[in-house]
Amino acid sequence: MGVVAGRLSELGCVLPTAPLPLGAYLPVLESGELVFTSGMLPMIDGRVMFTGIVGGSGHDVTEGAEAARLCAMNAVAALAAHLGGLDGLDRVEQIVQVSGHVLSAPGFCDQPQVLNGASEWLFQVFGETGRHTRMALGAFALPRNATVELALVARLRRC
Amino acid sequence: MGVVAGRLSELGCVLPTAPLPLGAYLPVLESGELVFTSGMLPMIDGRVMFTGIVGGSGHDVTEGAEAARLCAMNAVAALAAHLGGLDGLDRVEQIVQVSGHVLSAPGFCDQPQVLNGASEWLFQVFGETGRHTRMALGAFALPRNATVELALVARLRRC
Amino acid sequence: MGVVAGRLSELGCVLPTAPLPLGAYLPVLESGELVFTSGMLPMIDGRVMFTGIVGGSGHDVTEGAEAARLCAMNAVAALAAHLGGLDGLDRVEQIVQVSGHVLSAPGFCDQPQVLNGASEWLFQVFGETGRHTRMALGAFALPRNATVELALVARLRRC
Repeated sequence: MGVVAGRLSELGCVLPTAPLPLGAYLPVLESGELVFTSGMLPMIDGRVMFTGIVGGSGHDVTEGAEAARLCAMNAVAALAAHLGGLDGLDRVEQIVQVSGHVLSAPGFCDQPQVLNGASEWLFQVFGETGRHTRMALGAFALPRNATVELALVARLRRC
Repeated sequence: MGVVAGRLSELGCVLPTAPLPLGAYLPVLESGELVFTSGMLPMIDGRVMFTGIVGGSGHDVTEGAEAARLCAMNAVAALAAHLGGLDGLDRVEQIVQVSGHVLSAPGFCDQPQVLNGASEWLFQVFGETGRHTRMALGAFALPRNATVELALVARLRRC
Repeated sequence: MGVVAGRLSELGCVLPTAPLPLGAYLPVLESGELVFTSGMLPMIDGRVMFTGIVGGSGHDVTEGAEAARLCAMNAVAALAAHLGGLDGLDRVEQIVQVSGHVLSAPGFCDQPQVLNGASEWLFQVFGETGRHTRMALGAFALPRNATVELALVARLRRC
């Protein structure tokens, strides 16, 4: 079993099914040493599990962080599908960049705490390989009214 | 005539004039094998053709998709100018990433359908080379009150 | 003294302390020939110096541009820390891409003028090396209610 697959197993973490695109684009594209994912929503089996804002009368930060983690899980599921399965995740040399957009109540400004749900999970699963740079942004509107949208760029090992 | 130039011609598609920057930046920059465009607005000859929100009392999705396509046309016009003309577009090996921001009414969440106007056009013009990953986001405010802003990253063939 | 360090000195510009991350991420990550920064806020010594919107009853464009410049200064401080000090900034071959998010009043659409505060400063400090592509976006909510968040991607010289 691959190293990353083993960590997922230890954590009792089952990845969601790799998401289908919501439009005329690809979920994952490899270009040179980099691999890009599209924006991922907190989906399980095609259903968005967290909708609506964080802050105000909406989700609290803990729920928002669960949504962010689920986005990251979708991104990793999409990477795995691209790389030929869970064992292919060992080809990831570094998660390079995470762009996270949190559907926000007016004045809500704890987007970093929300996105830590994704960042900490990536570190748990990939170790140092999972450390990344990050943009944390508050969104006004997101596809399907999802609570979080997250995309990542990773660097792959040469085979 | 180049392959991409031929497709544009078959589609009866005339690209807008390559846009001038609205500030102290470059429309296009090549770095290694990648080429980046700045955020493009739905402009023709320096005039923004689509302003205001999509959804609510604003533009419908069809109009939004036209705005998105016009942004993509500006991005490709800027690439062509950088690559020495329409025939230079054959140097594009892959459109890698599209970032699309749709000025959205509160609660509007069909950004993917809007951005399909850009994505489907890129596929028509570039074929498989035009397939890309995508972030679809709902913007609260955009330069010049434009309806859509779109940037792309592409990979170039070595000469 | 390095070239960039010399320009900073001529301009009388003292960089802020390199910012600590607000969450489980890295301020800077080098990957191949590219180096990415996380989203930077207009901070000095851990304190956000510009909060709240630009436009309407908020900051004017001039104040917004100061905030944007301070974000760029934080990004360059983070790069310098990563590259072993101010002299390491001479390893920057090109600033490639700037993503700038301006906390905006409803209907505010002069994000490009605000971000010119960052872009013009980068050009002053780095010369042609500081020219970049840019996305200018209006944000609805940002971490710590910061007025601007800005990230950049740069290309490094091989040592």
